[in-house]
Amino acid sequence: MTELVDRAARGNQRQDQATQPGPGAGPSGGHAAVNVEALGKQLLGRWSDVRLQARSIAAHPELRKIEGLTHTDHRARVTGQLKFLVDHNAVHRAFPEELGGTNDHGGNIAGFEELVVADPSLQIKAGVQWGLFGSAVLHLGTAEHHAKWLPGIMALGIPGCFAMTETGHGSDVASIATTATYDPDTEEFEIHTPFRAAWKDYIGNAAVDGLAAVVFAQLVTRGVNHGVHAFYVELRDPQTRDFLPGIGGEDDGIKGGLNGIDNGRLHFTRVRIPRTSLLNRYGDVAPDGTYSSPIASPGRRFFTMLGTLVQGRVSLDGAAVAASKVALKAAIQYGTERRQFNSSSATDEEVLLDYQRHQRRLLTRLATTYAAGFAHEQLLTKFDDVFSGASDTDEDRQDLETLAAALKPLSTWHALDTLQECREACGGAGFLIENRFASLRADLDVYATFEGDNTVLLQLVAKRLLADYAKEFRSVDFGVLARYVVGQATGAALHRTGLRQVAQFVADTGSVQKAAIALRDEEGQRALLTDRVQTMVAEVATALKGASRLSHAQGAAVFNQHQNELIEAAQAHAELLQWEAFTDALGEVADPGTKVVLTWLRDLFGLSLIEKNLAWYLMNGRLSMQRARTVGGYINRLLARIRPHALDLVDAFGYGDEHVRSAIATGAEKQRQDEARTYFREQRATGSWPADEKSLKPAAARTRRN
Amino acid sequence: MTELVDRAARGNQRQDQATQPGPGAGPSGGHAAVNVEALGKQLLGRWSDVRLQARSIAAHPELRKIEGLTHTDHRARVTGQLKFLVDHNAVHRAFPEELGGTNDHGGNIAGFEELVVADPSLQIKAGVQWGLFGSAVLHLGTAEHHAKWLPGIMALGIPGCFAMTETGHGSDVASIATTATYDPDTEEFEIHTPFRAAWKDYIGNAAVDGLAAVVFAQLVTRGVNHGVHAFYVELRDPQTRDFLPGIGGEDDGIKGGLNGIDNGRLHFTRVRIPRTSLLNRYGDVAPDGTYSSPIASPGRRFFTMLGTLVQGRVSLDGAAVAASKVALKAAIQYGTERRQFNSSSATDEEVLLDYQRHQRRLLTRLATTYAAGFAHEQLLTKFDDVFSGASDTDEDRQDLETLAAALKPLSTWHALDTLQECREACGGAGFLIENRFASLRADLDVYATFEGDNTVLLQLVAKRLLADYAKEFRSVDFGVLARYVVGQATGAALHRTGLRQVAQFVADTGSVQKAAIALRDEEGQRALLTDRVQTMVAEVATALKGASRLSHAQGAAVFNQHQNELIEAAQAHAELLQWEAFTDALGEVADPGTKVVLTWLRDLFGLSLIEKNLAWYLMNGRLSMQRARTVGGYINRLLARIRPHALDLVDAFGYGDEHVRSAIATGAEKQRQDEARTYFREQRATGSWPADEKSLKPAAARTRRN
Repeated sequence: MTELVDRAARGNQRQDQATQPGPGAGPSGGHAAVNVEALGKQLLGRWSDVRLQARSIAAHPELRKIEGLTHTDHRARVTGQLKFLVDHNAVHRAFPEELGGTNDHGGNIAGFEELVVADPSLQIKAGVQWGLFGSAVLHLGTAEHHAKWLPGIMALGIPGCFAMTETGHGSDVASIATTATYDPDTEEFEIHTPFRAAWKDYIGNAAVDGLAAVVFAQLVTRGVNHGVHAFYVELRDPQTRDFLPGIGGEDDGIKGGLNGIDNGRLHFTRVRIPRTSLLNRYGDVAPDGTYSSPIASPGRRFFTMLGTLVQGRVSLDGAAVAASKVALKAAIQYGTERRQFNSSSATDEEVLLDYQRHQRRLLTRLATTYAAGFAHEQLLTKFDDVFSGASDTDEDRQDLETLAAALKPLSTWHALDTLQECREACGGAGFLIENRFASLRADLDVYATFEGDNTVLLQLVAKRLLADYAKEFRSVDFGVLARYVVGQATGAALHRTGLRQVAQFVADTGSVQKAAIALRDEEGQRALLTDRVQTMVAEVATALKGASRLSHAQGAAVFNQHQNELIEAAQAHAELLQWEAFTDALGEVADPGTKVVLTWLRDLFGLSLIEKNLAWYLMNGRLSMQRARTVGGYINRLLARIRPHALDLVDAFGYGDEHVRSAIATGAEKQRQDEARTYFREQRATGSWPADEKSLKPAAARTRRN
Repeated sequence: MTELVDRAARGNQRQDQATQPGPGAGPSGGHAAVNVEALGKQLLGRWSDVRLQARSIAAHPELRKIEGLTHTDHRARVTGQLKFLVDHNAVHRAFPEELGGTNDHGGNIAGFEELVVADPSLQIKAGVQWGLFGSAVLHLGTAEHHAKWLPGIMALGIPGCFAMTETGHGSDVASIATTATYDPDTEEFEIHTPFRAAWKDYIGNAAVDGLAAVVFAQLVTRGVNHGVHAFYVELRDPQTRDFLPGIGGEDDGIKGGLNGIDNGRLHFTRVRIPRTSLLNRYGDVAPDGTYSSPIASPGRRFFTMLGTLVQGRVSLDGAAVAASKVALKAAIQYGTERRQFNSSSATDEEVLLDYQRHQRRLLTRLATTYAAGFAHEQLLTKFDDVFSGASDTDEDRQDLETLAAALKPLSTWHALDTLQECREACGGAGFLIENRFASLRADLDVYATFEGDNTVLLQLVAKRLLADYAKEFRSVDFGVLARYVVGQATGAALHRTGLRQVAQFVADTGSVQKAAIALRDEEGQRALLTDRVQTMVAEVATALKGASRLSHAQGAAVFNQHQNELIEAAQAHAELLQWEAFTDALGEVADPGTKVVLTWLRDLFGLSLIEKNLAWYLMNGRLSMQRARTVGGYINRLLARIRPHALDLVDAFGYGDEHVRSAIATGAEKQRQDEARTYFREQRATGSWPADEKSLKPAAARTRRN
């Protein structure tokens, strides 16, 4: 409770600035009021300069999505936009200084994320070129490769592909079927796709623009398959733009969104490339065909090579949050202007956001967006620590992988859910493309799939949770595991990525129940959320206990019987991380009025999680029936408290009209409402308004039988 | 329990046809096996001939959606397709026989619904022309109007609009601001939109094609506003296609979907039309300006006029079910062919649908689709009874309105959810437009909004439930209401639309808990689902008890505080109706093997509803903690049982490749998988497959430090 006390103390110090505590007074006694500027600054985070610069670029009319273009025209436009980014120094931050970059990994991702507000196709196509293709050459290649190809990649002289996924294998990259077989006689690799399912598929830049590709293939030399490695392969003649001999492809055609990107398929029929085109940082083949690697374990080597993929997940996480913010800004502003049904007055209609259901629809998603945004900032910091080398142990990398795998599914699903809810909450207007919800939703749809399918990523998280659990309790009798207590967390949420450091778990049943009495209390929420993760993991672990002693098939069957629970445990873990990030961020809010409102918002997030999983808390004896019945009502009261601050909370996102670009978020609705109200007021005043039949005696309408 | 006994008896009679009860044996002793043909026939329902004919028309290449057209080209194509429908006698069933129709109202809707599989734009544009515009002339106009305009409307000589919604008022139709003021001197009405918010908006056929419109406006004569009436107004010169004097408009532009329809805005500046252009069935104005109506109450008159709108809701309900069926056919077929990760074998990868989570994702939605389909058939029957006049009392019309308002929100939201889940369950392939999920989803998005916003419709249902509750218990002390018992239902689910006839409510707490012991039992599920509706309504009713004695504003505030609960109660009611419809349909299944599988599917639907609302059952003491903890596991066991029948269950929908038109549902994936597996088998057999580094001694890879 010390934090609450601190907060109250700080609140009191500033009380002179605040008005008297009234109906809006918060727990600290401070008057609820959002300091939009200060909160906006906090939300911009560590890379605020980059973000502001990127937003300024994203606002250029040349970069904005034009709706209704054919996919051919849209592709051409986005290709042109990439050049604009190069010319404006917007996309080279992650590259080495000697090549004109700034070696700024966190800033690089922050800058990419903001492009989503211009056009998600632009964000993703830029990500393909520099974040995947260029990054693979940078991170998997060595000095010679850097010198040879990075300048062309950076300047867009070599548009390229990241050719990993195949028609037959997406999530299971280790099983891709394209081979790169070494021939010591010619000192060449032969790249080959032996059957249709081995074709590279869904590859950005493959259908039209790609001159080269980093192709992932099973490296075979001297009769041994050393697993998946990356090869630099030229695809097309730069002049004619025809495929080079042995290479062919297909256009993936129109997609559900992101039609500014030319996704396609590639196939290779015994295509020969020089030995030196193997990107050989983590595995090399000598002229005689001898394979060598700095990483002895093939498994560890594979995951190290794939580790560069994490930046894609990080940037999707951030872009999903940005899109959610833009949508909520538009829908909430419209919700404060639009009126419908005069339930509480004879003359005035209600503003939509005054309806409880409308608050439920939008404000709960606003709370989740704040949580996802704060969690993203922590992820980005962790990413920067690892990629800058500041904190780059194996454990750091694993923590980063787990954190990204936990947060990306939640934020991308949240963005789709939010975009759809905003669309529906704005009715027919929400469906018009001029209001952008439908456009953004269509483009972001596949964010739930690429750079790691959300369901698969959550299973990776679950496996990490199980592994941590097993490590922690190796020597403990399984029978008593359900009642263990872990030590207090040491601090920052970043250290709580894995299960073993989940904070302040309270296994003692009495204590959880006591905490639950204070549902509204920070510690109470933490205890409930943490306990759920711990218990779910412990339950699955217990159920899987004997699985390793079964046959391959039987063990898999047992695992499969608990797949759903595992995914739910991982999701609960990720939600806890979001809640912790929100709570950490609260600690950094200096303005007492802002702190009051943000604390309500955090509570709304926490209570919404608890409400969503209320059945679990009830059937596991964590909440009493009486206590559980208060959750919904308390959420409704929080909604009413937050309602007057809703506009401030979306304004703090810092997106202007040039970013939101939604016709209904320009004040046009208010103007229409005002015009209509003025008209009726004048009509009533002059007496020229006809009487309402309903208010007259029945005789006014002559009943007729025809 | 008599039905269960009956079923067992019928099952036993057919035991000779079934194989021995094995692991797949169902509760009746019959062996689980779907008779696809018989089930398919049942699913086609009462209007099977019309459906088959409509599906045959929908399969014509001329009617299929071409993806990637500009909205201009798409509009032109769909306009041409309407002519095709006319030429093929596909859209006139609801019109009178003397005009070439067949007076077949249920069949008419069934036929329209099936058009969604060709192109939702076609379904909706046809719905605008004949279901809204034509239908308004038919149902709101009188003989003179019919003779004058219906032939042209039917033959498409007069493409027209249904101009009701305004920019300022969508859900609250009674408050539209367009006026039709009668001038006895010229015997004309003056149609006028006094300000921007009064413009008609989102109107299909308004941007390009519409030559005329049925315009809804406040009828003012002799200084009295008689409320919303419908007027036939010519919009454009048929030759030049220019707007007539005083009329103007705007194109709504590109939308999130349905871009084959030219939605737009219309405004009227003192446009004069003859007195006789008032569609005067329910309200007329004499030459001298005297108003008359066969319905004395302005409120009842308004709802009667709007009653024709119900057919739009009915047809959206059916179309949403059809789209869900098509999507599930594609995703489930792909799920039985696609393989990823070899968790249970060294050589073979798992089929996606064998993963528990994949089953959860798709089979639960399959169950809901069956439920929604059976419920729709009941709705369509009710609709036909009313519109054919077979059963057309005020109460019938109210029941129809409530039933449509309850089912349309659930089925349209379900379709969006299903299309999205299928999209994601098919990974990157799901995002390709060639697999149709994203296309159908984009088009169906607005089904949640038009013809009645889903959230608003559920509130209408809730108000009906409250009204029925009040009627039922007018004389009962409110304090004891939570424990009342209603009589047994008399029969068909159609009679249970309103609360007062909800079947077999068991208020006695002991009895509910006893029933809950048999979660898997039909009566147990019914008791739990029914009890929840009743209790939720009773609780809200009690909370609102004194609201009518408060001021207008205070009463509205109290109501608003319970808005969320009200909507949830309405949804629970609608889900119960779906469950009852599924259960009724089970009674009509003759084949015992099919009955076994469909009973599992119904149980999966019922248990999924109970799982979704498990917190409610726990915190209201309807389920014990121990009982609640069994629900998830039982669902998982049902999934495993249904899994082998999944393909049969989607094949029974009866849609062929020409309707599904999804590249991944053509068997192409199986072909690719077979090709790959054959390749690897041959490689292993000939010994030409390289050894895996992982399976060799560590020495095979020389560790290198660079």
